[in-house]
Amino acid sequence: MGLSAGRIIQVERDILGKNNALAAKNRARFADDEVLVLNLVSSPGAGKTSLLVQALAGLKDRIPVAVIEGDQHTSNDAARIRACGVPAVQINTGKGCHLDAAMVGEAYERLPLLKGGVLFIENVGNLVCPAAFDLGEDCKIVVFSTPEGEDKPLKYPDMFAASALMVINKIDLAPVLDFDLAQTVEYARRVSPRIEVLTLSAKSGEGLAAFHAWIRKRLARGRATASTVP
Amino acid sequence: MGLSAGRIIQVERDILGKNNALAAKNRARFADDEVLVLNLVSSPGAGKTSLLVQALAGLKDRIPVAVIEGDQHTSNDAARIRACGVPAVQINTGKGCHLDAAMVGEAYERLPLLKGGVLFIENVGNLVCPAAFDLGEDCKIVVFSTPEGEDKPLKYPDMFAASALMVINKIDLAPVLDFDLAQTVEYARRVSPRIEVLTLSAKSGEGLAAFHAWIRKRLARGRATASTVP
Repeated sequence: MGLSAGRIIQVERDILGKNNALAAKNRARFADDEVLVLNLVSSPGAGKTSLLVQALAGLKDRIPVAVIEGDQHTSNDAARIRACGVPAVQINTGKGCHLDAAMVGEAYERLPLLKGGVLFIENVGNLVCPAAFDLGEDCKIVVFSTPEGEDKPLKYPDMFAASALMVINKIDLAPVLDFDLAQTVEYARRVSPRIEVLTLSAKSGEGLAAFHAWIRKRLARGRATASTVP
Repeated sequence: MGLSAGRIIQVERDILGKNNALAAKNRARFADDEVLVLNLVSSPGAGKTSLLVQALAGLKDRIPVAVIEGDQHTSNDAARIRACGVPAVQINTGKGCHLDAAMVGEAYERLPLLKGGVLFIENVGNLVCPAAFDLGEDCKIVVFSTPEGEDKPLKYPDMFAASALMVINKIDLAPVLDFDLAQTVEYARRVSPRIEVLTLSAKSGEGLAAFHAWIRKRLARGRATASTVP
């Protein structure tokens, strides 16, 4: 059927090229609307939604916030976000393993204007494929959880290299798991020397204040950049 | 660049069609060699390698065993298997998110003959993409770990539907996590009514005897099938 390696590579390039063009459009739109967009990526079950629920509780009464949720199936996560009183759009990818810029652009149209606020994108739980897809976000945040084991940054380096921040979640389980935090950070910095690191527990609340502070700093930086644009 | 949805779907079909043809070749080869092939799939960090280390300890002195390891990067897992005195071949997929039948066919050539034994394939940690790729295995085993949360079978149904057995690992953490076992099994059976379920802890050893018994049953079934072939 004419399936050559060259043909596959060409189609992959076309897909990424088309995605990058749409991501650039999204980025321009987010900048016009003065919205900070954070793309949360992780393995399945690392705790992205629980982290969002906690982050939103600290933000929603002060600035506009909303969430775009990605999952193969179910709208459980969007329901959890809406239960917090925050607008959410669920994208179901079906067979798909990641969100792309077109999906996010369409979902964004269905949200209220978030001027001066934060849009969180919760990607499909997958430590591989979402690394390659720019959605137009300000940055990716990789949520890593202690039960996954210290070696994951080395085994899945693209995702850690693509992320500005590594949130180490489920830190409350670290003692039970004999989790080696220093080793994990060393591995992450080996593949991504400038990655920032926060440890927290979305369950116990430990470390959440630092995550809120990180978001506020990122918001302030966005405003400073916007104000220098002529 | 002529990137239509139809063109993408056609290339996907070509890739899966080519993979299925190579998987059928692998399957015939495995049958000729009288090897039971088990394809372990899971999220990153669910404990596939730890489970293998335990399973191999109970098998290696009685029957031939070997492992094909898949990871984006590193050969840590093959090194862990070899440290048990078991042959292992590491495949690094680089940007790739799953093993395919061609990779497995080539790796198999580098292993000793396993007549009457078991070849374990440890797939890339990814609860999405490996579901679509037949490697020629007897069956897939999805290794799910309690910290991932009860809802994963509903969110990633393809993988659970593609698997004959769900191993629920890290059961020693269930009390700490308030993990709801009955709910998880109910969700898994909703997407895959006949899936078998075992609970165990690769760390504490709890439940491993039942996993060994499951493998022996599967081996016996393979022999019974082989003996009825003219």
